[in-house]
This record gives sequence, C-alpha cells and structure tokens, in this order.
Amino acid sequence: MVRLKFSIQLAYQVLDRTCDFIFNIQPACTDRQRVLAESLSISQPLAFQTFMHDSEGGRYLRLQAHAGPLEVIYQGAVEIDHHMEDPAVLREMPVSDLPLDALCYVYPSRYCQSDKLRALANYEFGAMTPGYYRVLAIQEWVNRRTRFLSGSSGSTTSALDTLIDHAGVCRDFAHLMIGLCRALNIPARFVSGIDYGADPSLGATDFHAYVEVMLSGRWYLFDPSGVAPPMGLVRLGTGRDAADVAFATVFGSVVSESPRLEIEALVDVENGVYLPVYHHQALSSAGLEVSAFRELAG
Amino acid sequence: MVRLKFSIQLAYQVLDRTCDFIFNIQPACTDRQRVLAESLSISQPLAFQTFMHDSEGGRYLRLQAHAGPLEVIYQGAVEIDHHMEDPAVLREMPVSDLPLDALCYVYPSRYCQSDKLRALANYEFGAMTPGYYRVLAIQEWVNRRTRFLSGSSGSTTSALDTLIDHAGVCRDFAHLMIGLCRALNIPARFVSGIDYGADPSLGATDFHAYVEVMLSGRWYLFDPSGVAPPMGLVRLGTGRDAADVAFATVFGSVVSESPRLEIEALVDVENGVYLPVYHHQALSSAGLEVSAFRELAG
Amino acid sequence: MVRLKFSIQLAYQVLDRTCDFIFNIQPACTDRQRVLAESLSISQPLAFQTFMHDSEGGRYLRLQAHAGPLEVIYQGAVEIDHHMEDPAVLREMPVSDLPLDALCYVYPSRYCQSDKLRALANYEFGAMTPGYYRVLAIQEWVNRRTRFLSGSSGSTTSALDTLIDHAGVCRDFAHLMIGLCRALNIPARFVSGIDYGADPSLGATDFHAYVEVMLSGRWYLFDPSGVAPPMGLVRLGTGRDAADVAFATVFGSVVSESPRLEIEALVDVENGVYLPVYHHQALSSAGLEVSAFRELAG
Amino acid sequence: MVRLKFSIQLAYQVLDRTCDFIFNIQPACTDRQRVLAESLSISQPLAFQTFMHDSEGGRYLRLQAHAGPLEVIYQGAVEIDHHMEDPAVLREMPVSDLPLDALCYVYPSRYCQSDKLRALANYEFGAMTPGYYRVLAIQEWVNRRTRFLSGSSGSTTSALDTLIDHAGVCRDFAHLMIGLCRALNIPARFVSGIDYGADPSLGATDFHAYVEVMLSGRWYLFDPSGVAPPMGLVRLGTGRDAADVAFATVFGSVVSESPRLEIEALVDVENGVYLPVYHHQALSSAGLEVSAFRELAG
Repeated sequence: MVRLKFSIQLAYQVLDRTCDFIFNIQPACTDRQRVLAESLSISQPLAFQTFMHDSEGGRYLRLQAHAGPLEVIYQGAVEIDHHMEDPAVLREMPVSDLPLDALCYVYPSRYCQSDKLRALANYEFGAMTPGYYRVLAIQEWVNRRTRFLSGSSGSTTSALDTLIDHAGVCRDFAHLMIGLCRALNIPARFVSGIDYGADPSLGATDFHAYVEVMLSGRWYLFDPSGVAPPMGLVRLGTGRDAADVAFATVFGSVVSESPRLEIEALVDVENGVYLPVYHHQALSSAGLEVSAFRELAG
Repeated sequence: MVRLKFSIQLAYQVLDRTCDFIFNIQPACTDRQRVLAESLSISQPLAFQTFMHDSEGGRYLRLQAHAGPLEVIYQGAVEIDHHMEDPAVLREMPVSDLPLDALCYVYPSRYCQSDKLRALANYEFGAMTPGYYRVLAIQEWVNRRTRFLSGSSGSTTSALDTLIDHAGVCRDFAHLMIGLCRALNIPARFVSGIDYGADPSLGATDFHAYVEVMLSGRWYLFDPSGVAPPMGLVRLGTGRDAADVAFATVFGSVVSESPRLEIEALVDVENGVYLPVYHHQALSSAGLEVSAFRELAG
Repeated sequence: MVRLKFSIQLAYQVLDRTCDFIFNIQPACTDRQRVLAESLSISQPLAFQTFMHDSEGGRYLRLQAHAGPLEVIYQGAVEIDHHMEDPAVLREMPVSDLPLDALCYVYPSRYCQSDKLRALANYEFGAMTPGYYRVLAIQEWVNRRTRFLSGSSGSTTSALDTLIDHAGVCRDFAHLMIGLCRALNIPARFVSGIDYGADPSLGATDFHAYVEVMLSGRWYLFDPSGVAPPMGLVRLGTGRDAADVAFATVFGSVVSESPRLEIEALVDVENGVYLPVYHHQALSSAGLEVSAFRELAG
Repeated sequence: MVRLKFSIQLAYQVLDRTCDFIFNIQPACTDRQRVLAESLSISQPLAFQTFMHDSEGGRYLRLQAHAGPLEVIYQGAVEIDHHMEDPAVLREMPVSDLPLDALCYVYPSRYCQSDKLRALANYEFGAMTPGYYRVLAIQEWVNRRTRFLSGSSGSTTSALDTLIDHAGVCRDFAHLMIGLCRALNIPARFVSGIDYGADPSLGATDFHAYVEVMLSGRWYLFDPSGVAPPMGLVRLGTGRDAADVAFATVFGSVVSESPRLEIEALVDVENGVYLPVYHHQALSSAGLEVSAFRELAG
C-alpha cells in the first residue's frame, strides 16, 4: 500500500469576459484508490460543479470564471492498494473473452492510430509469445528509441509523429505504446496523473501520463517513459488517449502559468504503507468498473 | 412516424481455424426506435452472445466462427418516432450547459482531428451566427466540395484526407462534418445505419453513415452526403467516428462478400405512419440516454 | 529600373571542431540583375570557394569554419531592370510549348505536394479562365486565407500543412501558391531574396521568399505573402522550393544568431532609377537561362 | 560489359481531343551506356520531339496525340560498361568535398523527406562506420522490413508512408533508402530503368527503380528491392525521386494499358560481354556529367 500527499496549483489570467474550464485534477475515487483528505480552493467567488464518472471514478470540476486572475489549488492525500501479480501468468486475452467495454481500447483513437501501425507492430513484435512479456518488450522498444525531450512535441503530436521523431514527452511515449498494443489487438488505455519519485533530471514535478494494458481480465500499469515508478502514480483520469483526459480543458482565451505540483510519500510500515518503488511484479491500480453493456438472453 | 422493414445478409469465407466476429447489424433499441419484429440466422451451428449498450441501445453480436463459409442474416422491422423541431429555435450550447457525456464528442477522435481543423473552421464558419443554420452551413460546405466516389477512400482515410482529396463515401463526409463541428466546440457524433430512399444512382443499397449534432440539449440528424432523407435512417450504432461503429469487426483472416441489404418503408396513414421524406424541420431520433456521470454535492 | 544597396550580417558560434557551411547570400548575377559593387568579410581566416550556377546565376559560398565565433558580412548594391508586361496578354502555356527545363517546376517537390492538391486546385480554380488573372486569383486566395504569423511554422512545414493551419511565414505562403499552380500544370518556382519596402509591422527586415510563375515563356514575380512590393526583391536563389535555396546550409553543430539585414533604395530619376513600388503590370526579373536539354534530330 | 536488347510497348486510349505526353522510355546516352541500335514506332501519324539532358544523357520524347488509340513501341540494344570498385575503399564524402551538383541530392524531395528522417537515420545507422558498408546496411534494412507487394502503394506514397506501411514496390524501396541516406548527408538519387534478371515470382517484367549513392566522387548502384542484379539495369532517367522520372507523364485524360516489356541479355565472351549477375564489387554505370556550376575566382 502507498500513501501520497500532494498539491496542485494552477494559475490563469482570463482574457475573455467569461471562460469555461473543465478540470480533472482531483484524484479518481475507486475501490483501489481512496481519498484520505482533500481541499479545494478557487480564487474567484463562483459556483462550480463536480462530477464523477460512474465507472472509472474520475472527477471533473466545471466552472465559469470571469476576466482576471484565476487560481485553483487542490490539496489531497490518497491511499492506493495495488493488486500485484506474477507477470508470468498474465495472458493476452482472446477477443472472444474480452469484455465489450474493453473494445474501445482496441480501436484506434486520435493520437493512437493503431490502424496504421499494424504492419510495424507485426514486424517488430508479431513473432513474440503473447503475454505480459510481449507488452513489456513493446514498452522497452518505445523507451529505447524515444528521447525524453521537453518541447519536442505539442498538442497535435500523435503516435505516428513520435515514431518518426524519436522524441517526445510522457504523453507521446504513452501514445506510441498504446498504438502498438492496439495494433496487436491488445486493449490499452491512457492514464493521466501525478507521480512520486520522478527522475529530477527531467525537470520539476509535472503531470504525468501512463499506460494501462488489459491482461487476464485486469488493467496493468506500464510507464514507457520510465521517469518514475508506476507504483507512485496517483490516477486523475482514464481515457483512450490524451484527448480524453486533459488536466484542464479551457474554452476561451487565457494566459496560463506553469502548473505547480508537490508530492510526498507517507510511510507507515506498521500498517503496511511503504515508499513507491520499482517492482518486478505486475501492478494494477484500476478499480472495479461497471459495464456499460448488458448481455441479452440468446 | 416511419416503419421500415429490412434485411441484412453478410457472407464470409473464414480462412483461419477460428475467427472472432463482432457484428453491429441489429437495430439499436431506444425509446424512439422500437423493434416490431426480427429474426437472426447464422449458417454455422455455434453459440453467440448479444449485448446491448445501456445508454445508447446499440446491440452487438459476438461469435467465434470456424473455418469455412459463414452467413449471417438479420431481418427486422422498426418503428421510428422522430422528434421534430423548428430549426430557428435550436441553439448551440455554451460549454457550461453541456452534459459531461457530450464532451467526448467535442474532443478529437481518430478520423475527426478537430484539433487540426480549428483554424479552417474559424476561417470558414467563425463569423456566422451560431445555431442550427450554422451547422447546416457546415453540412452544405462539406457536401458541395466533396465528390461521392466509391473506392476513393479506405479504412485509414480521415477528415483531413477528405478535406484535401475532395472525394469520399458517406463515412468520409460524416467525418469531415464532425471534425468541423467539434473544431467550433459543437458536440458531433457518428451514426451508422441503413437507410431508405437512397439515390439509386449511387449504387445498390449499402450501409450508411450520418452525423448527429447536439443543439439545445438534443442530438439532431444531419446527412452531409445527401444521398438519402435522414428520416429514413435505421440506427445501428452510435460513436465518436467509424472506429467505434463498424457493422462488422473481424479478428482473423477472412474473405468477405459484399453485404446484401434490402429495405422497404411500410405506410399506415390511419395510424400516422408515413414514407420517409426530406423535411424542413430538424429531426432527432436519439433516445433518452443514461448519464455516465453523477454530480457530487458541492 | 531599381537600385538597391544592402548588407547581410550572419553570426554563428561553431560548436564542432570544424563545420561546413554553404551560403547563398550573394545576389544572383543575371542579365537583369547587375551587381554594382560588393564586399564580403569573413571573421575567421579561412579559405572559401564561390560557385555560380551557369543558368540561373545563383552564387554559393562554401567554407569550413573552425570552432568558435564566425561572422559573415556581405555588402553590395545591385541594379534590377525588370521586364514589364500587360497582364491581359499573359497566357498559361500548353504543355506542348513548355521548355523541358520548366517541367521540373510542374512536378511536385518536398514542400509543394502538387500531386495531392489537384482536387482542391480544380475545385477552387478549375473553372476560371487560364492566364495571369487566374494565377493572381491563386495568389489572392492564399493571401486571404493565411495569417502571417512568425513562429507558426518550421523547417518541415509543407504546403499541405499551411493549407490546414491557415498560418505561416513568407516561405509557407510561397509553397502553398506554388503547389496550387503546379496542380494546374502551371510551372511555378521559389525565389529567395531580400526585399525593400516590407511592412515594418511584420518585424525587422528579414530574408524573403517569393514565387515565380511561367506565363507566355517568361517567369513572372508573385508575392502571396503581400508584405513588400515584388519590385524590391533582390534575387539570391532560385529553386523548386525552400529545400533548394536556404540562405545558409550548415553541416554541423552551431548556435545561430538572428540574421541582421539592412536595405535601402537608391534613386536617380534622371537615369530612370526609381523607388520600388507596387505595380499593376506583370513584372519579371528572371534572366536568360541556358537550357539543360538539347533537341535531337527527329 | 553487358549487352541488353529490349522492347517497350505502351498503349493508351486518348479520351480528350488532344493529349500531351512526355515519355522517358529511350535509354540514356552516356559514356558508360552506349546505344547499339534502336527503333521507335508511334501508331498515330504525328510530329514528335526528342530531347536529351546535356549532363545525364536522359532522353525525353514529347508528342501531342489525338483522341483514339495510341501505341508507342521502342526497341533497342545497349552496351553498358560498368565501373567496378572494391567496396572497402569507398568513402562517404565530407560536405566540403562534394561537388555542388550533388547537393540537390542531399536535400529532401517530394517522396524522400529526409528532413523528417534524421532522428530515425541517426538512431539506426548513426553509430556505424561511414562508407560503402553503411550504405549497404541501409539497403539491407529497407529490404528486410519492407514487403514487395504490388498494389500496396500509389502515386502519392512517400518514404514516410513506406516506413510505416512496411510494404511497397520498387520505387517505394528506392524512396525510403534515398531518404535515409540523405538524412545522413549522403547524396542519393533515383534511377528509373528496365532490368534483366528480375525474380519472375514478382510478376511480369516491368519498369524498375534503383538507387544511386555518391561515394568517393562517383555514383554507385544499389537496389533495395533486391529483385534483380543491378548489373542488368538499363538507365532511362535520373532524378531526385519518382516525381522527376516517370516513364510517361500524361497531361490529359487517357485509359492506359499495362506496359509490355521484354528484355534479353546478349553474351559475347570473346569480347568480354557477359550475363548480368549479382556482384560483390561496387558497380557504377553513371557517365561523366557536366557541372551546372563554375567556380569563381576568390
């Protein structure tokens, strides 16, 4: 079990008379990620709404700000109880066993054009034994050939671009790995979050993006960027790719400051709470999800 | 009200020992589209599962076929009770009023890269008064500049390609219109179906693809390809773009024959059942949907 | 006739032990552009070579610099004697009359993918009467829909990107116009230069890029970016697109400062030397060129 | 020395009233490729022009055909005297030694976007020792990862597409290899031709495309498609990529039949004329070329 205490501080100058924001900065609430305490502070006196996704537990804060400065500060602490598994037993699932809810994570999406990556994925990974270790090989391949380089990509950069540019930031690593997995019919999705233990040489603490891959019926964590132990990820949003889970979606004209994030790990050895570390076991932090489909009687 | 009776006949030669199929050929069940009668026949003696999406009512047939010929025949009749509205009163919704479920239809998707279409959409449509008639102008713009040309596009063709190629089939028209709407923050989604009354010069009856745009809180039908009256569409699937709603997704090696479709309209004037026609009112056939989000107490 | 006196000052910090440079900063020598005086100064004591293209008169300075600072200063004055023509008499040439040397300017190139722009070019301009005014319409179309925005494009930006981005700098305007002309089988090429009279709101004097289109057997000047009168352009290089005529091609690792350019127009009314102005006549500054082909006896 | 006798038969149905054609089906005349005999037959009674490129010796046939059938038949025999070299002595040239005429073969072109391939080329080949064997490694890499598949590519397919599709025909293999060489500042160009000894499993004799790479001051032959011994290539055209050297460029509306080609090798052992074979030595068939540049006195 890990406990992480963190704060996220966002600051904007709103240029329009009013401007709509949708934030995804509150940690998701699932049966594996429990919020221990939290507070939210918004510098303008305004009404806001908070929504939670029924199945994935992601939380969305919607508000309409007025012209002038806007500051949003979230502080919280979460406890994450990872499911761990021996990688050797984790299987890629035949399509006939996949839950229908996982299918949208096999299909191509804006930044993960798996339909175009089939030939490449088969050339590089087609001959390997399916399972956790093939997915790990994909992660390693992406990590090895891609340089982590701030500013090398932007909001329209996709997996195909990253493949050719050989450079990107965490979301680009994630998109390329997701695209390759889907090209092999392996469900893969995008997790946004903040994380503990990032390599400080890669700059100050920032939002992070990971990959989840479905193996043997459960979503397992992978981080192709390799900048931090997956165990230290606090889940904010879950989606097909970065199009779904921006930490802030802004409908209007603003000047943004760089987000300021802080995170620390709490340790309580007596109660089984440890520092996040790199781990040889497969890790899953996804909670139980409610299916959007029901089976009809034959 | 319209009543449509139709059949869909699919034929494959399965080359692998087994092959997984997911079909989306049964009409969706919603409170605006009621199935009056139906039958399904599968030429191989095998088990299959049928699933229904809780919210949109789309139905998915999953089966694993064996090597050799496979024929799937669906026959059914549906009654569709369209909501009609005066176009002049239909407004584009401010983001602050959008249901959160609609947001994924504002974000870019595989074939509708609205993030790249912002400059174009603003150049062409930015100065127009928001509302139904702006959306209609987008539909007309797509229709006028795109040539309907069988074989001019393929499974990787996206809205950007269609923009440049000036040619495509119904799904390409739909992708381009959806991309442009989203670029203006107007929720737009993809509907697959079969339809009555298509221009026979465009070839035999085939699957069709339409657009739905959210205006004043409801999804309205648009057909940028212009080949058939939207009133005659039978809804099969609803999604972000064609990646989500193929009529058949095949995981394995097969030879496919062209689908064979037949459709006829039933008329019962006494009971208010008429032929599908082009109509000057705005039409909606989307049923009530269950939100995937719930609002949390402030 | 115009006379322009100008200086170009380039400064680099060479990081490698040695670094090869090819500069194209000396004005081309043609029978329409005469060099009146010039000087070249290179801050490192090194040998260099100057080459001239036999046909187009472009000059190339090649040198190998050592680690440390490198400054190259060119100062010169040229006299340009434009050919002027009544636009109404200028015809697009049938392919059967085109010189073979012009064909490479009909074919697609790196940044001007005219093969992909055929449908668009025909949709927008196909119905217009061929001739100078159709080319002018293309220039206006590019100018109107593209925003001049420093930093909006880069070294891999092509005509297709500019078409979609609706923004760029002078080279992007030129690429899009060239691509559209070629898509209609009109020979069009890229001219790099410096120019007099640029709109100062677009920033300090910088290198510029123009378009030349062959009409009635001669290359005429067009500036789709509209920032300066074409009459004030000093030709440096001529090529298919920006790939051919960079002002500096650097093979090695350097830090570059922004180029510093100055230009002034000399007036000598008695001798027919005037200020460069916008002119309603078609202007050509291309010299006589030597064909690379010779006709064989039938 | 090899001697090859061949015929090329092209057939069209011209749909427009007149239609311009430019053919590049006559073998180039260079000091290494000598035409021994030839004949040309054109089914319509019309005037035509033949041009030869001064430097590369490529020949271009221009004619304007009338509506109706058009058949063009070329028959000829050539003798090719290859320069052979020990691969181990062939060096990549420093930029400071490159002839300026070679620079346009270092720059990116329509189908060989070397500017986008720099990161990839450095990742895959950057650590290898420069020279013939590095170029051979590039050839092998392209050959191994690309499937020869008729119909898998088209007239807009570029090196970037082939990189991702892992499939193509000879011109696509050539474009990818050229793009990678240029990305490493190695001059590389495109040769079109017909060739003797192609693997018959790849279909009937067809036009072929090869690569030439400049090493130690001379252009050497490489065939990344691997379908035939480079020694058996008859050079038709030489250019930056396929945009420059189509065997037929058609300006108008026609229906084309598949070209019909025949080729046989003549052997005359006494006079040193042998069958074309795969050879371990580096082969060059490029003639002496006239520079388009002249050096100016310092």
